[in-house]
Amino acid sequence: MRKIKELGEFGLIHQLSSRLKFRAPDSILGIGDDCAVYPVKSGMKEVISTDALVEGVHFKLSTTTPEALGRKALSVSLSDIAAMGGTPKRVLVTLGIPENFSVSFLDKLYSGFNTICNRFKVELAGGDTVSSPKCFFINVSVIGEANRVFTRQGAKPGDLIFVTGTLGDSSLGLKLLNRTKKDGSNDYKFLTEKHLDPTARVHEAGILARSKINITSMIDISDGLVQDLYHICKASKVGARIYEDQLPRSPEFARTCKKRSIPPLPLILNGGEDYELLFTLPADGAKNLNRQFLKAEVLVTQIGEIALKPRKVLLKMKDGAQNILSDSEGFNHF
Amino acid sequence: MRKIKELGEFGLIHQLSSRLKFRAPDSILGIGDDCAVYPVKSGMKEVISTDALVEGVHFKLSTTTPEALGRKALSVSLSDIAAMGGTPKRVLVTLGIPENFSVSFLDKLYSGFNTICNRFKVELAGGDTVSSPKCFFINVSVIGEANRVFTRQGAKPGDLIFVTGTLGDSSLGLKLLNRTKKDGSNDYKFLTEKHLDPTARVHEAGILARSKINITSMIDISDGLVQDLYHICKASKVGARIYEDQLPRSPEFARTCKKRSIPPLPLILNGGEDYELLFTLPADGAKNLNRQFLKAEVLVTQIGEIALKPRKVLLKMKDGAQNILSDSEGFNHF
Repeated sequence: MRKIKELGEFGLIHQLSSRLKFRAPDSILGIGDDCAVYPVKSGMKEVISTDALVEGVHFKLSTTTPEALGRKALSVSLSDIAAMGGTPKRVLVTLGIPENFSVSFLDKLYSGFNTICNRFKVELAGGDTVSSPKCFFINVSVIGEANRVFTRQGAKPGDLIFVTGTLGDSSLGLKLLNRTKKDGSNDYKFLTEKHLDPTARVHEAGILARSKINITSMIDISDGLVQDLYHICKASKVGARIYEDQLPRSPEFARTCKKRSIPPLPLILNGGEDYELLFTLPADGAKNLNRQFLKAEVLVTQIGEIALKPRKVLLKMKDGAQNILSDSEGFNHF
Repeated sequence: MRKIKELGEFGLIHQLSSRLKFRAPDSILGIGDDCAVYPVKSGMKEVISTDALVEGVHFKLSTTTPEALGRKALSVSLSDIAAMGGTPKRVLVTLGIPENFSVSFLDKLYSGFNTICNRFKVELAGGDTVSSPKCFFINVSVIGEANRVFTRQGAKPGDLIFVTGTLGDSSLGLKLLNRTKKDGSNDYKFLTEKHLDPTARVHEAGILARSKINITSMIDISDGLVQDLYHICKASKVGARIYEDQLPRSPEFARTCKKRSIPPLPLILNGGEDYELLFTLPADGAKNLNRQFLKAEVLVTQIGEIALKPRKVLLKMKDGAQNILSDSEGFNHF
């Protein structure tokens, strides 16, 4: 096992960056100087965000692979750009590396970075690799561009609420990883992969951004459906009503909850890390939206509507009962 | 002592960001959504970089204050932008926070961020605050703009080598912090502050960028004079000759080395963390350079010249002897 010390800092950076195949056609200067340099495209807006993953808090090395971790670290940040309707263009990656880590582990991590960079045409523009004896962490800053920007603010009473994909898979996957022995079933594989290797909805954000649909607010679901819907409600000074029987769930999710007697609703509402897009639009845009997503073969579901009553999210149950959902049940980092 | 848990993640972010007074006049959306949003200025280039500081590796909480640490975390990143001749515009700050940290500590850290943001008109555009039970770290990504960009590549044989400020103060300051008891002298204060609270040479980079001087290469001295001069030599495929008696040292540095019998040369050559600018230009630009720096009341010193022989840095001693300097004596992160 090759140790990092043998390569030295600059040797390590050289070896790892040679893994990265995607170079932006317009980049002026990539990795290797004090900064990376890019031209700016006039008329576009710059969207920027940063996210960190810490071992033991956001992931365990015992339940993931370095490749999947590399993909997830980038996907989580790219998801923030997608949440604004932007296109991610470049990332800066910082690694805090404990002493006993092998070069081969970092190589595989970079292979994961490379997969996402290639898939979304994102350039890894630079970074910092530092010694961090007591904990392994990854920080990803991402710079994207946007023409239209979708924020959390702007949802209006009467707007319809939509979500891409299905909900709860990631948190059920995490539950399986933490609780049970590995299981060879396809359902187990599907759900744990949704947690370990989520897909940033960059393509779906692109569909929305290129469409003429009047998206009034958007966010990505990282903290959990309810918590993130509250973020929209607070920023937009509105409330929301969602319907239990409209919340999209995967067959794998439904089967596994049933088989293991796990109540599905808490996972769907508060599970977090779905990285699906949650957005609102006036009712007259729904037909166009559904047509575009059908054409792209991407699942999108109307789950409720924006209500007048500010800062209150109601859940209408199948049996007709109505619950006020609390906004503090999502993932809290502390 | 108020604990972070009591405020919660969003309360904490709200409290800390209220400390930040500088807002870029052209920003479209600051902290509070999935991304911050900015217009792009056509004709300019974007320069980006990221740097992490890890407790126990890059700083000790026993020898610094949270305010100074906040200032240094930003200054170190801003220095990378200065090294390219750029103007820093916005930063994204990630904090990895152990559980027992107090809100008051973070408040003071942010007060340090605020000082630098105000001084250099840099907006703290967002960030991530995560729980990191085993280690405290700060990651700063910075986005700047540049008209002309100065890279490490482009130094030509015969070019003169210049450095801003004085060398070795920071590493001597670190030595004092690690070795000795606190001492009330002005020299101790000056040197330890140069280590704990360095100034990014943003203004000096601005003088160079606005001038018509043909800067052929530039870097900031973070790893040490020799190591960083080697970076220029490798990128430019040239060598360098520097002169012992021309290396600028502060009176505080000279006095302290003498008083404590510390050999000054290793600190000047390999100390690191000076965050001074090291750059090259053709001889006919020297007069203009000196005039501009004199006018700005900033110290700049010619320390040698670029030589033909590739990848070799020579030191000419006062006694006429000539040493080949090794490129592996600077700060290595592993």
